[in-house]
Amino acid sequence: MKKNIKIVLEYDGSRYDGWQKQGNTDNTIQGKIEAILYKWSGEEIEIHGSGRTDAGVHARGQVANFHIDQKICPNAKTAMEYLNQYLPEDVRVLSAEEMPDRFHSRLLAVRKTYSYSIDMAPKKSVFERKYVWGLGETLDIPAMKQAAEQFVGEHDFKSFCSNKKMKKSTVRRIDSIQIEKQGTKVVFSYTGNGFLYNMVRILTGTLVEVGLGKRKPEEMKTILDAMNREAAGMTAPPEGLFLESVEY
Amino acid sequence: MKKNIKIVLEYDGSRYDGWQKQGNTDNTIQGKIEAILYKWSGEEIEIHGSGRTDAGVHARGQVANFHIDQKICPNAKTAMEYLNQYLPEDVRVLSAEEMPDRFHSRLLAVRKTYSYSIDMAPKKSVFERKYVWGLGETLDIPAMKQAAEQFVGEHDFKSFCSNKKMKKSTVRRIDSIQIEKQGTKVVFSYTGNGFLYNMVRILTGTLVEVGLGKRKPEEMKTILDAMNREAAGMTAPPEGLFLESVEY
Repeated sequence: MKKNIKIVLEYDGSRYDGWQKQGNTDNTIQGKIEAILYKWSGEEIEIHGSGRTDAGVHARGQVANFHIDQKICPNAKTAMEYLNQYLPEDVRVLSAEEMPDRFHSRLLAVRKTYSYSIDMAPKKSVFERKYVWGLGETLDIPAMKQAAEQFVGEHDFKSFCSNKKMKKSTVRRIDSIQIEKQGTKVVFSYTGNGFLYNMVRILTGTLVEVGLGKRKPEEMKTILDAMNREAAGMTAPPEGLFLESVEY
Repeated sequence: MKKNIKIVLEYDGSRYDGWQKQGNTDNTIQGKIEAILYKWSGEEIEIHGSGRTDAGVHARGQVANFHIDQKICPNAKTAMEYLNQYLPEDVRVLSAEEMPDRFHSRLLAVRKTYSYSIDMAPKKSVFERKYVWGLGETLDIPAMKQAAEQFVGEHDFKSFCSNKKMKKSTVRRIDSIQIEKQGTKVVFSYTGNGFLYNMVRILTGTLVEVGLGKRKPEEMKTILDAMNREAAGMTAPPEGLFLESVEY
């Protein structure tokens, strides 16, 4: 009998090549976890993440699940303790739960929240240096809020997708974009039903260009309509991005 | 004409051998700053810190001062910008101010505040892993508060000093010790007129032994009276300690 274990993870993505396993030269979060599960069970166990995170991107609430023999893993708590014992300091299981057999962390995800943090100070905070984009310039927050409103709702976000070969639908629904000043930081929070490859980073890069006065807030609709990556702004660097939570 | 510049610094002490310069094989905060001042001015400029911090200890508000020719450094803002440009990512000048010639950051300090953070979770937070002691056990906070009260006031803290050859007075005044639970963390905050070598870490290590039920809160007076390092508890590791602020 197999148990289906759901885990919630936090990780500092700084030194990893992202979530998704990459063949032999593996330095990914998925690869690290699967290596531990193999050592534990003697079987190749695949772990399904709610989605990939890119190289250098962090998570406070990545969700994943895997199936494991109940003789090896009698309950979810055991899985959490075993994984935390062998995972490095920069990856941690926050909670674990036994789920019905049909639960799948990617296929059944209905909403995700990402955050993106920027430091406007001339030199970025020492203690948050790996978790913010050190922009070092002042951003016009009301202008960025006005621009962000135009992304809320269901839109074709093709202009905000780095994958040019994307054949599936590029339509996504954004439920909210919050932009908040916290000291010298600006924190963007995006909630929606799904995000395309690099979408949060391109949205942020584009909003930053608005915040710097290089683009007008009204331009956002034109960018969406262009259905062309070239129309949008830069891709913000990975270190400011966090997968915050996944809802089912 | 020399200007006397006071700077407030934050640093992540993880990869340094502490504040104080150590001859040739120098990997200290003081050494890094003096090297930049030398490059800038062509002169050997000594920077006076408010006090040493040990290897691995952090600061959110270390204060230091140095004298520099006004032809090189016309104002405090220039000093801050120059230093921040050349300091590594884990050291930052937060503010700079021109002071009267007699100002000295160590000799004139009247009060200091240190904090010490402990994570009680079985595995410590990924994002704070370098800034907490990952104790992984639950602490009895009321018992630690009761014990801490006995340290408040003026006492001879000889039992809480790692320097056995200390010839100067070991009498210090502690104005307050706050102990606060923040999620799975416990944060200790110590304010006083001065702290002996390793004093905050030994106080914390001793309070932790109370929090784990290994010592009784009433024992603290006996430890003070012993005037002997052996009577007190363990030295808490450096990574949880922060120099928060210095008052003049």
